[in-house]
Amino acid sequence: MESRREKNPMTEEESDGLIAARRIQRLSLHLSPSLTPSPSLPLVQTETCSARSKKLDVNGEALSLYMRGKHIDIQEKIFDFFNSRPDLQTPIEISKDDHRELCMNQLIGLVREAGVRPFRYVADDPEKYFAIMEAVGSVDMSLGIKMGVQYSLWGGSVINLGTKKHRDKYFDGIDNLDYTGCFAMTELHHGSNVQGLQTTATFDPLKDEFVIDTPNDGAIKWWIGNAAVHGKFATVFARLILPTHDSKGVSDMGVHAFIVPIRDMKTHQTLPGVEIQDCGHKVGLNGVDNGALRFRSVRIPRDNLLNRFGDVSRDGTYTSSLPTINKRFGATLGELVGGRVGLAYASVGVLKISATIAIRYSLLRQQFGPPKQPEVSILDYQSQQHKLMPMLASTYAYHFATVYLVEKYSEMKKTHDEQLVADVHALSAGLKSYVTSYTAKALSVCREACGGHGYAAVNRFGSLRNDHDIFQTFEGDNTVLLQQVAADLLKRYKEKFQGGTLTVTWSYLRESMNTYLSQPNPVTARWEGEDHLRDPKFQLDAFRYRTSRLLQNVAARLQKHSKTLGGFGAWNRCLNHLLTLAESHIETVILAKFIEAVKNCPDPSAKAALKLACDLYALDRIWKDIGTYRNVDYVAPNKAKAIHKLTEYLSFQVRNVAKELVDAFELPDHVTRAPIAMQSDAYSQYTQVVGF
Amino acid sequence: MESRREKNPMTEEESDGLIAARRIQRLSLHLSPSLTPSPSLPLVQTETCSARSKKLDVNGEALSLYMRGKHIDIQEKIFDFFNSRPDLQTPIEISKDDHRELCMNQLIGLVREAGVRPFRYVADDPEKYFAIMEAVGSVDMSLGIKMGVQYSLWGGSVINLGTKKHRDKYFDGIDNLDYTGCFAMTELHHGSNVQGLQTTATFDPLKDEFVIDTPNDGAIKWWIGNAAVHGKFATVFARLILPTHDSKGVSDMGVHAFIVPIRDMKTHQTLPGVEIQDCGHKVGLNGVDNGALRFRSVRIPRDNLLNRFGDVSRDGTYTSSLPTINKRFGATLGELVGGRVGLAYASVGVLKISATIAIRYSLLRQQFGPPKQPEVSILDYQSQQHKLMPMLASTYAYHFATVYLVEKYSEMKKTHDEQLVADVHALSAGLKSYVTSYTAKALSVCREACGGHGYAAVNRFGSLRNDHDIFQTFEGDNTVLLQQVAADLLKRYKEKFQGGTLTVTWSYLRESMNTYLSQPNPVTARWEGEDHLRDPKFQLDAFRYRTSRLLQNVAARLQKHSKTLGGFGAWNRCLNHLLTLAESHIETVILAKFIEAVKNCPDPSAKAALKLACDLYALDRIWKDIGTYRNVDYVAPNKAKAIHKLTEYLSFQVRNVAKELVDAFELPDHVTRAPIAMQSDAYSQYTQVVGF
Ligand SMILES: Cc1cc2nc3c(=O)[nH]c(=O)nc-3n(C[C@H](O)[C@H](O)[C@H](O)COP(=O)(O)OP(=O)(O)OC[C@H]3O[C@@H](n4cnc5c(N)ncnc54)[C@H](O)[C@@H]3O)c2cc1C
Ligand SMILES: Cc1cc2nc3c(=O)[nH]c(=O)nc-3n(C[C@H](O)[C@H](O)[C@H](O)COP(=O)(O)OP(=O)(O)OC[C@H]3O[C@@H](n4cnc5c(N)ncnc54)[C@H](O)[C@@H]3O)c2cc1C
Repeated sequence: MESRREKNPMTEEESDGLIAARRIQRLSLHLSPSLTPSPSLPLVQTETCSARSKKLDVNGEALSLYMRGKHIDIQEKIFDFFNSRPDLQTPIEISKDDHRELCMNQLIGLVREAGVRPFRYVADDPEKYFAIMEAVGSVDMSLGIKMGVQYSLWGGSVINLGTKKHRDKYFDGIDNLDYTGCFAMTELHHGSNVQGLQTTATFDPLKDEFVIDTPNDGAIKWWIGNAAVHGKFATVFARLILPTHDSKGVSDMGVHAFIVPIRDMKTHQTLPGVEIQDCGHKVGLNGVDNGALRFRSVRIPRDNLLNRFGDVSRDGTYTSSLPTINKRFGATLGELVGGRVGLAYASVGVLKISATIAIRYSLLRQQFGPPKQPEVSILDYQSQQHKLMPMLASTYAYHFATVYLVEKYSEMKKTHDEQLVADVHALSAGLKSYVTSYTAKALSVCREACGGHGYAAVNRFGSLRNDHDIFQTFEGDNTVLLQQVAADLLKRYKEKFQGGTLTVTWSYLRESMNTYLSQPNPVTARWEGEDHLRDPKFQLDAFRYRTSRLLQNVAARLQKHSKTLGGFGAWNRCLNHLLTLAESHIETVILAKFIEAVKNCPDPSAKAALKLACDLYALDRIWKDIGTYRNVDYVAPNKAKAIHKLTEYLSFQVRNVAKELVDAFELPDHVTRAPIAMQSDAYSQYTQVVGF
Repeated sequence: MESRREKNPMTEEESDGLIAARRIQRLSLHLSPSLTPSPSLPLVQTETCSARSKKLDVNGEALSLYMRGKHIDIQEKIFDFFNSRPDLQTPIEISKDDHRELCMNQLIGLVREAGVRPFRYVADDPEKYFAIMEAVGSVDMSLGIKMGVQYSLWGGSVINLGTKKHRDKYFDGIDNLDYTGCFAMTELHHGSNVQGLQTTATFDPLKDEFVIDTPNDGAIKWWIGNAAVHGKFATVFARLILPTHDSKGVSDMGVHAFIVPIRDMKTHQTLPGVEIQDCGHKVGLNGVDNGALRFRSVRIPRDNLLNRFGDVSRDGTYTSSLPTINKRFGATLGELVGGRVGLAYASVGVLKISATIAIRYSLLRQQFGPPKQPEVSILDYQSQQHKLMPMLASTYAYHFATVYLVEKYSEMKKTHDEQLVADVHALSAGLKSYVTSYTAKALSVCREACGGHGYAAVNRFGSLRNDHDIFQTFEGDNTVLLQQVAADLLKRYKEKFQGGTLTVTWSYLRESMNTYLSQPNPVTARWEGEDHLRDPKFQLDAFRYRTSRLLQNVAARLQKHSKTLGGFGAWNRCLNHLLTLAESHIETVILAKFIEAVKNCPDPSAKAALKLACDLYALDRIWKDIGTYRNVDYVAPNKAKAIHKLTEYLSFQVRNVAKELVDAFELPDHVTRAPIAMQSDAYSQYTQVVGF
């Protein structure tokens, strides 16, 4: 409830109880909702909201042109292909086993029939790869993830962690799906803490082989996509154990990646020593066959070590260009950041679909109304605007932020610039976790905002929520990823004080730290005019101020607590604070990108619509955290009140262009699919679906 | 993110950047999460959280004795019955059609084999009825709802809206499931706004019959439970149309309820004139067969009018003990409040199961740890405590509040006391909406808190969330119900000013209004000692202050806006504010009940544990709304900070008795069922489930 909480109404005008009371009884009359003793019809007249202010006339074409991705052609090709193949569309109800087969067939259809070959783009044109992923994800999210497992995880591990010999041997088979494969990192006992993995790969110099073993049940590889049914290979992450000539006899070289064949190329039988079980029914993504793998002395040739960052020679000597176990492991994991970029990007895609369905239906749906007048659209209720309009604004905000992330990632893949690598790493961790957490909550809000009809499976919220849910966990758990963002900020904070340079995205910290460490300006704290509150400078300053102060304070707290609690204890004592810092930072980055996008929009009316959304995004976030701002007198009480009023007003304004803003996502009916959100005759399409 | 937001850290000690920075780098080293370049092993030592303070020794038996419901015997009988009948247990994966058949068989088994007869308790012993509902709901939520449709909705409408002739004719058949039935109120176009229903029941004096008609597609009865497959009858809500002798020819007497046979008693064929379609696959509750009904001149005898509140004589004359259409409709709907009480109560049951699974697993699961020390339980992370401990405290809070609601409801059913009717009506609307919204969000938090293993269907969060989701919507949409609570408060506010009496639950408004309308006390606003913050008087005062102020202010705002916008417009302009008021009020009622429950607990150690939870509930809510309190200087900046610190500390304290608090719910493993939450050998039970 806190998000709707009126944090400030107490400063609202004082009441004259008696007069009010009389009127109140009459007011409450208009409300005659379900299952309640219902008073008589109201007598009071009303003016409906939508008549309240002049509506902005948005050039929809210009807006969608501005929003449109570069790779719309391949996306449309994908939509057309699946549209032409009803046999490849996922029905509303399907068993797990059938769903898995269908999903595999969808992938085969995409690659072998539609001729879309995602693998080549994984390395060479990531923007295109992500566009493909977004499109197939909206066909069925399971397909998006299945494709990601095959090309980005299994394929990606081979080309990014292996060397030329691996590429030569596996590229074509992975590309054309002859070599289906898995990415086997997680174990039953270790997910987030990958350094704790226990599977071993022991070098046997006699036979020139590695022996893969699962030392105990906790080390069973778990959740491995493609393992339960379709995979022929797995990239297995295991501790490399080398024989030594000292008393210990062996040496643990840390976690490395190995290609392990798990099923016979011809018979598809599980290979000897490999035990595969099915992880079973999941909350969602049941088109993906996640399995659990146990290895009993499975032998693989030495060549199957993915040896880009570390190699073992014929005689068992270890070589690497990188000095330490941790550097090597870091480099290994660093190559996999693309998965996270993809999830952030795909999550915005889900948010777009969900917001579109909820908003289109809320425009159509009417319920209650002023006495003796037609019922009103539920989107005219202030509460419905509160549920959906900041969400619509946020969708735009995240759109621009993730497009930027994808660009940066592509650039990084080309230049391998070190600064950029660090930047993309933290940005992808932050955006992935922030956006997926938001979308997960938004999906529930959308379902609820559509009432009973939102609960029909055909209207999509259920499967979208169930499929998307795990975006918060895989490719790095959100709570863990945010800590990486916080750690990165602290590192840069330190650099700043040592006079180092700060990278592009974060540079505001450098510029602003000094300003923000001083007390808030008591004069501007009182400015409450709309022009001021809608000034990007005020908004950005407020976000940056908050981040800078959070950073400075947590640094001090960490320092204090580490004296008594040690590093681990101090970090834990400040953990909520650190997570807040990370989120605050990400919100700041998102706002900066949104402001830039508004500025660069060439069409004036489109720009005006974006500006409304951007202001709503900014002020809604400030209002949500008004306690922080009030507590240090960054805003005075009346300014807080003005921010709240303006937020409600902007929600109402955005409602007036909601249709245009949603249309600009250019999601055709065959992508949104929910009958209640069809662009024409929604009700009759809905009744048809159930058989009338 | 707002809930974790550090609203106050800026007042934390100022930093010495340089020293801090050096330490920070070391601190950040301990963090080596998945898929990221991971730094070297940390060197700093740590003290784990759980060693920080002395643990309270809770007498678990005393605590569970205090928590235990009166009707544990019948609940155990139900559990035992289903335990002994594996054929009646719902498998993880099941098709919609099979699920519906199974669900019907579960109900038949319960009634005819286990001999549990819920129908007699609907009217005579509601507490027992709700206990049965809770127990069957934890077997399968679909069964709980299916049972509710049969006995509380269909059966309840017959006995509560009908008269002796209906009871005599239908009681036994409903009781023994020969007369399966539906409650057909909602239409495609009208859910919350039931006064807008369009189905008609026209009296035909020639044949002494009513003719039921669906005038247009928007009037198709929709979402009707039991209609798609099993129902033989439906209580249909339709506008009663009577012939008149004036020029209009007919008169619309408003919505009434009629018993309409929809399927043949022998052949089970749909009867002539009735068209039934299947609403299809839903987000959850797929064991319930919701259908859509269209009527084409379906004739029923005059006796089928449920005539308790209004009757039609042989010659078409209308009689009623109640004066107006609205009074009659109100009385009709008022009889159905039990469904809402049941949902609030059942929702707490779901929350208990979900919190139990998440907390038991969080105690077991270990991930990361201080350097060279064993990994720690994830419940030792401050962030995990933040996710789950206020939730555990809230579960206790809602437990006591809904137990109270059920008691009041039973009393009301016995006494029919008018004051109590009004009280129960508002309280059930408020608690139903507040608790179900909370539980819906909590289920997502629990899934996420359990990481990947929380996503295995077998661990329950998916089905619990999907099934529970609609609790927010049916039996009255939450956003609509909260408005009823607000309207009720405004009504009482008015009564107060007219010198009327306030009923029990709300009486604090009477007592406190005068105090709270004055300015906050600048002295107590600065008190920040733990004793003060944990004093129930401070906590209740803070909650009541907020509610009183919100009420007073919204009354004034409504008065102001109604001048220009009319009643409907003014209400809408203040809608967010009104919803906040309603929530604030409900939170206050919940806190008062919790404080009372702590006070009355006979065992000192159990009492101490409850006190921890109660303080956490109270302070967490105050902190969530700290902006409001700060803005009117109800709390000074340092007090705000103290509240935040104490909240984190209490989360940690509650964590230390989390096992005991969860155990006291007395949910046996065969009820929680999630392998990851088994009370012993959870991991090995989990591996067994997937086939190892
Ligand atoms: C559908 C699905 C598909 C998957 N596919 C693959 C795959 O193909 N290959 C593969 O290798 N893996 C795969 N995974 C595994 C996935 O990567 C892991 O689930 C993920 O890394 C999280 O690890 P975990 O589940 O062990 O959670 P844990 O690490 O056990 O986390 C559990 C909880 O503890 C909290 N927590 C943990 N550490 C900390 C900390 N330091 N501070 C605060 N809180 C903490 C987390 O926030 C989380 O809420 C898949 C998982 C699923 C569910
Ligand atoms: C699984 C299931 C089982 C059901 N079983 C039955 C049954 O057996 N019998 C039966 O008769 N019905 C049944 N229903 C219908 C149920 O009672 C309705 O769905 C419910 O009353 C809500 O109505 P609605 O769906 O039309 O939502 P709407 O009233 O259309 O509401 C849609 C949205 O608009 C918002 N809204 C509406 N009015 C206002 C307002 N005044 N102010 C602010 N916001 C507003 C709501 O908050 C909601 O978010 C069932 C529904 C489902 C999904």
